[in-house]
Amino acid sequence: MSAPPDSPLRALARAAKDAARAMARAPAAQRAAAIRAIAEGLSARRADVLSANRLDVEAARAAGLSETLTDRLSLTHARVDALQGALLEIAAQPDPVGATTREWSRPNGLRVRRVRLPLGVILMIYEARPNVTLDAAALCLKSGNAAILRGGSEARATNAALFTLVSAGLSAAGLPPEAVVMVPTQDRDAIDELVTLSEEIDLVIPRGGPGLIARVVARSRIPVVRHDQGICHVYIDAAADPRKALDIAVNAKTQRPGVCNAMETLLVDSAVAAAHLPALLAALDARGVELRLCPAALAAAGDAACDASGDASWRARLAPATPADWDAEFLSLTLAVRVVDGVEGAVAHIDAHGSRHTAAIVTEDAAAAERFTREVDASCVLVNASTRFNDGGELGLGAEVGISTTRVHAFGPMGAESLTAEKFVVWGDGQVRG
Amino acid sequence: MSAPPDSPLRALARAAKDAARAMARAPAAQRAAAIRAIAEGLSARRADVLSANRLDVEAARAAGLSETLTDRLSLTHARVDALQGALLEIAAQPDPVGATTREWSRPNGLRVRRVRLPLGVILMIYEARPNVTLDAAALCLKSGNAAILRGGSEARATNAALFTLVSAGLSAAGLPPEAVVMVPTQDRDAIDELVTLSEEIDLVIPRGGPGLIARVVARSRIPVVRHDQGICHVYIDAAADPRKALDIAVNAKTQRPGVCNAMETLLVDSAVAAAHLPALLAALDARGVELRLCPAALAAAGDAACDASGDASWRARLAPATPADWDAEFLSLTLAVRVVDGVEGAVAHIDAHGSRHTAAIVTEDAAAAERFTREVDASCVLVNASTRFNDGGELGLGAEVGISTTRVHAFGPMGAESLTAEKFVVWGDGQVRG
Repeated sequence: MSAPPDSPLRALARAAKDAARAMARAPAAQRAAAIRAIAEGLSARRADVLSANRLDVEAARAAGLSETLTDRLSLTHARVDALQGALLEIAAQPDPVGATTREWSRPNGLRVRRVRLPLGVILMIYEARPNVTLDAAALCLKSGNAAILRGGSEARATNAALFTLVSAGLSAAGLPPEAVVMVPTQDRDAIDELVTLSEEIDLVIPRGGPGLIARVVARSRIPVVRHDQGICHVYIDAAADPRKALDIAVNAKTQRPGVCNAMETLLVDSAVAAAHLPALLAALDARGVELRLCPAALAAAGDAACDASGDASWRARLAPATPADWDAEFLSLTLAVRVVDGVEGAVAHIDAHGSRHTAAIVTEDAAAAERFTREVDASCVLVNASTRFNDGGELGLGAEVGISTTRVHAFGPMGAESLTAEKFVVWGDGQVRG
Repeated sequence: MSAPPDSPLRALARAAKDAARAMARAPAAQRAAAIRAIAEGLSARRADVLSANRLDVEAARAAGLSETLTDRLSLTHARVDALQGALLEIAAQPDPVGATTREWSRPNGLRVRRVRLPLGVILMIYEARPNVTLDAAALCLKSGNAAILRGGSEARATNAALFTLVSAGLSAAGLPPEAVVMVPTQDRDAIDELVTLSEEIDLVIPRGGPGLIARVVARSRIPVVRHDQGICHVYIDAAADPRKALDIAVNAKTQRPGVCNAMETLLVDSAVAAAHLPALLAALDARGVELRLCPAALAAAGDAACDASGDASWRARLAPATPADWDAEFLSLTLAVRVVDGVEGAVAHIDAHGSRHTAAIVTEDAAAAERFTREVDASCVLVNASTRFNDGGELGLGAEVGISTTRVHAFGPMGAESLTAEKFVVWGDGQVRG
């Protein structure tokens, strides 16, 4: 069902489309100036933003929102610092619009170039995390797009405060105010209408729970790049360095357990399960991780070799895993642990249970690492590093609009370049086709 | 509505998904060998293919299929030669799978690479042109994907003959037979079911009339890259070389009028309309083109300057354009002609009426050409060359699965590389996030 031509949402989208034309032609310096102005605004209005956020967090607590979502919602001074740093990093990046990515000649003398251009109008539908409001606005500005932002109701006050900064930044740089617009309603029907506006909107990016994503995919007439859940894996190979294995497993699980790039399942090669698991499990247990093990892992954990050095009460807290645990995104201090047979077993487990998000291998064997990086189905594959690095900022993109878990258009963290297309520009001197 | 788990089409898609895993790991040489084997088969079985095609063409004529579609359907010796050349060119191209496209380091020592990988399973839904069967199969093989092909009923016999060659090529190279499968029914409901199989299929490419594309977009739960109609423009600038203008306009309109990169509207700068139009219109009329003009073009055509040199009876055949003509994909020897004010006027007309397919400018003014290539909304923008070059083969891609008219994922002709994604591969030595 398409929206009536005069609906308020269609008018909003049309205004964004007109602004997108102006954005595509706006000089790089002007778009970067808008991003810097937003960063300056964030610095000047930090107190307002934090107090708006406190309102949202208090309301979330009162409404009984989960600890994970409340953590995602909360802004702290450190998080505002990070946001500001991301804005300045994005502003300073090379501008993608108009860049020639490749160039070649044809036998008939035609010179062919691929040239980057903005996608047009991008609809971001997201939940909880208010940083997305600024990250997405900045990345859309950097890539010459217009953006329609639809944040979650739980972050309403924070998003409103941040959106004020975006509008002020656009105005300070002389860009059209409709280059970034916010959907003025929290009504879910608004999403249903927006995703049918294929004449006005070029790309929909839903970032949130499975319910939101399924709703968007089912209704959209516009291309969708999904930012799905992260069922992320760390695989401890036979040739793993035990110290790296421990550091990476602990970091991947506990550094911020409520986010999508945290580890949900630990895989251990059967050849070293008995050697590594006791120390790994004891360390995770000591940090409050609830452990759910396959039978082989339970057996390997029974090895008493490490008990000489301390308390072994963690053994009593181990629980058997259920089949559902292999497919769970816990987003909390719960971890599934499974023994597998080598790289092949790890790849097969991730094929069957992963969400194409993040996988890490710990190994000193370069051939095993190469095979894992080639064969495993994940947008980001890490060798001897924590899954927590699958993040636009950490990988050098400045920030991200999210992490795509489908291979079409973009795979993994999406920075400014992921919000562009490439056209063919062909120069001739009168060539015709024979 | 999702398909029942045991439906025959889902079983077909699952088999393709299993084959896709094998294809992603198959060496480049093996996949190239399959493509060469298909080319050899085409050479050995050319007579069978042509006689199958004659059956389809006769049936099409008997059923009253349009001249345009019958032309698209027909194979000739020259077209088979071209197909064979395309297969060999694709086989010889560098393999995209596993290629590192970029590489950088982070301050913490992480080394980040972007590495190409196949998309997975690609569903091609196409009409008429049987060459798509081989082009799509070869490009999917080259990019390590599996393909599900669903050609149109009008090309049934030809597609069956060509598909035999594909199966034989896969078998000769030792690749799984399900790496390229053909949908065994012409039932339209099959399309409706296939586009819901988001667990098995990664990308849907519909290539055909607006009805087919609308049907797929409305029902698909899988990402779709549309290959829409081509409302293509040639703009004759004030600084155009008259000879190039004439050659390009005639070629773009008449060399093969039934295809998507043929010109449908000719735009002429008002500053030179009176100078150029009489010669242009006379030449097009002489090749049987039916001309529909805006009032300013009709006035400019009245200039008698060129009549000295010959017959001016073409003037009597000019007709006024109706508003619908600006939005028409004629696919025949009909052309709309409009006078516009400079590059700005041309860009505005194409913004309003183009289909993001192809636009050409004829000019000796580099600044005008630069502006046109930057601002015009088309997947391929040509300077002083015919629109007919917006074609994967002509631009050096070997062949194409089609020409994408949406900016998401790919824009313009899609070769093997457009059927890949890029994952992040990150090497560390124990890094964790602080």
